[in-house]
Amino acid sequence: MKSDQKLPMNSLRLEALGDGIFAVAMTIMVIELRFPEMEDMSWLSFKNALLSISPDFLCYFISFVVTGIMWFGHRMIFEFIGRTNRYFIFLGILFYMVVCLVPFSTKLLAQHTFKLFAIAIYGLNLSLCNLVLYTQWCYGINRKSLLEREVTIEIKKTAKFLFLISPVVYSIAIIIAIRVPLISIIIFTLTPLLYLLPNKIDEHLP
Amino acid sequence: MKSDQKLPMNSLRLEALGDGIFAVAMTIMVIELRFPEMEDMSWLSFKNALLSISPDFLCYFISFVVTGIMWFGHRMIFEFIGRTNRYFIFLGILFYMVVCLVPFSTKLLAQHTFKLFAIAIYGLNLSLCNLVLYTQWCYGINRKSLLEREVTIEIKKTAKFLFLISPVVYSIAIIIAIRVPLISIIIFTLTPLLYLLPNKIDEHLP
Amino acid sequence: MKSDQKLPMNSLRLEALGDGIFAVAMTIMVIELRFPEMEDMSWLSFKNALLSISPDFLCYFISFVVTGIMWFGHRMIFEFIGRTNRYFIFLGILFYMVVCLVPFSTKLLAQHTFKLFAIAIYGLNLSLCNLVLYTQWCYGINRKSLLEREVTIEIKKTAKFLFLISPVVYSIAIIIAIRVPLISIIIFTLTPLLYLLPNKIDEHLP
Amino acid sequence: MKSDQKLPMNSLRLEALGDGIFAVAMTIMVIELRFPEMEDMSWLSFKNALLSISPDFLCYFISFVVTGIMWFGHRMIFEFIGRTNRYFIFLGILFYMVVCLVPFSTKLLAQHTFKLFAIAIYGLNLSLCNLVLYTQWCYGINRKSLLEREVTIEIKKTAKFLFLISPVVYSIAIIIAIRVPLISIIIFTLTPLLYLLPNKIDEHLP
Repeated sequence: MKSDQKLPMNSLRLEALGDGIFAVAMTIMVIELRFPEMEDMSWLSFKNALLSISPDFLCYFISFVVTGIMWFGHRMIFEFIGRTNRYFIFLGILFYMVVCLVPFSTKLLAQHTFKLFAIAIYGLNLSLCNLVLYTQWCYGINRKSLLEREVTIEIKKTAKFLFLISPVVYSIAIIIAIRVPLISIIIFTLTPLLYLLPNKIDEHLP
Repeated sequence: MKSDQKLPMNSLRLEALGDGIFAVAMTIMVIELRFPEMEDMSWLSFKNALLSISPDFLCYFISFVVTGIMWFGHRMIFEFIGRTNRYFIFLGILFYMVVCLVPFSTKLLAQHTFKLFAIAIYGLNLSLCNLVLYTQWCYGINRKSLLEREVTIEIKKTAKFLFLISPVVYSIAIIIAIRVPLISIIIFTLTPLLYLLPNKIDEHLP
Repeated sequence: MKSDQKLPMNSLRLEALGDGIFAVAMTIMVIELRFPEMEDMSWLSFKNALLSISPDFLCYFISFVVTGIMWFGHRMIFEFIGRTNRYFIFLGILFYMVVCLVPFSTKLLAQHTFKLFAIAIYGLNLSLCNLVLYTQWCYGINRKSLLEREVTIEIKKTAKFLFLISPVVYSIAIIIAIRVPLISIIIFTLTPLLYLLPNKIDEHLP
Repeated sequence: MKSDQKLPMNSLRLEALGDGIFAVAMTIMVIELRFPEMEDMSWLSFKNALLSISPDFLCYFISFVVTGIMWFGHRMIFEFIGRTNRYFIFLGILFYMVVCLVPFSTKLLAQHTFKLFAIAIYGLNLSLCNLVLYTQWCYGINRKSLLEREVTIEIKKTAKFLFLISPVVYSIAIIIAIRVPLISIIIFTLTPLLYLLPNKIDEHLP
């Protein structure tokens, strides 16, 4: 029995909760996918059925990839931050809460793909996720007791860019949606590709 | 192959099951969120739709935060208790069972936000969670074989306070609901903030 | 990079999958709980609503505890078996499959609580879970390469008893259900208590 | 605090996310299982009810086993690949995405068991899973920095065979379905048994 001392309270459990919530949130989006009833078994009605669920599939695809990227960012944070405290955990729960809303706003976007309000809610939700994650990151790296490894200024800059570029792009997409909703959807589809580009943090990873 | 000896039977698996159950229970609450059908695409009907799901959102928000705090308490327990036995695991499963009921009573509260019976069931459910968790805590810290680190009297007092303050507050909220349900909802909303205040246990955590 | 050698292929990942599946299966049973629509807001209709979901609650309670006990048995297995092979994993997946059916047969029992066929399907499902788990246990302890610690004859006997007592009791319950379904439900309710009694395996656990 | 150096960025978190997603996807298939309403409580209507959900059960059974095998393949990959990078994680998320679609196409097959389009979508989905997993495997073993242990040419050959045999068999099944859908379903049912045969990789596992 260790004597009573400052506990390390590492971040492992919080990460486990997070991985579980991400797993459920990502999979739950599938529940919303329903193949429509077909009038008859002809190829025409099959083609129509496929066509009618294609927006659902597109939204599901975008959300899954975006959520995956958020999971990646969330994972990256814990490469540097290895310990938690009360406030860091609260920020974590807040982050998981907005992540859990993604299936909700994905469903809304799938139902009303080219409607301004659906695009706005979807964009706001994704932006919020990134902003809360950014807050969590800033809180963590500014408290030496939570850090597991040094965060260089270069990493700070890159992380800041990676966390804040999405909200900016999504805000532009929402504004564009007032006139041409189609372009907004294209922006939502292409934004994840940004994160495929190599960046400065990668140099610190194998 | 280790020879046959007293097995450590550590608590890691129980914690993993718990993290999974918390992750699913917290995310499942989202499934209940449904954006209402809108009559037309005007801003008025959008505003009405938003308004009609606002109690759902409020309840979802409260429950998510409260469940998050319970997860935090549950996590804290395992900082001190590192081994399990048959009865401790039974108490754990009982705890997970009442936690799993939270999405159910949240849904009920969302449907009947200002009704006494919904507030009563919701408050009872949350109180029950805390009471079972408190029982688990008491069972664990009174068995030296389960302890991983010493629990000082100060920690015992603080933990007791933290586990029992919610049931007391929720009971008051239920009684108030007989006359003014609105105040009960406000109490439910504000109670989680109590746990944002620093406490004595924190001094033993980084 | 380790050179190419016999890989340990430990059981950790299989346990993680299992914990996840148990967590989801246990929580999913909650989704089936729906508070009935009430005609008016009187205490009478509230009482009626409570009464009408009481079988659901009872079934949910029994299934949750039984599934928890199975999780405990599943966990116990991995205290002794620390490595896996192709066939052991297949048995594991088979076990998880019948566990995943428990929410299905629980729902059936909740809908038709005192009907023979529902009791039979429910009892068969639970029996099957225990039998597959028993098969997995037998397969594992008879392969030295999978064992992590010695399994004494005493442990073997106790485990055999614990795995096989439930199917026997459930079979009796099904037969009784032909005449008096109520007694079967009582048996289902009380069986889990058997596992609260201390047993020989406990002596090898702290 | 470790100084700033190349981080190992091990694959543990990705595996945890994967285990969670597999657990949810496998369990979610159960939600789709619904016992049909029975007109009366006679054995005849019970027999009819059982008969009417038997295709659902068959599809659930096949999908559960197939998904389990995929999980096994996914697990095997991480026995050799112990570190991740940006692109490997992207491939992983892509893999989880197609795995999450399995409950969707299983449901479709259960509804239209002997229809060509359902068989085609189901077969394509399973094939896609294997192909993405194969891509992930190829990407990983060709990057020394990600490898944890040497992959011999023999293992490479066996793994290639195991990953690509299913898509080939499923493609044949889809073509056969144009004429005799029943044979396709039989092929789907029997394919998993292929993976019960011992193979060359097993020699490197205990």
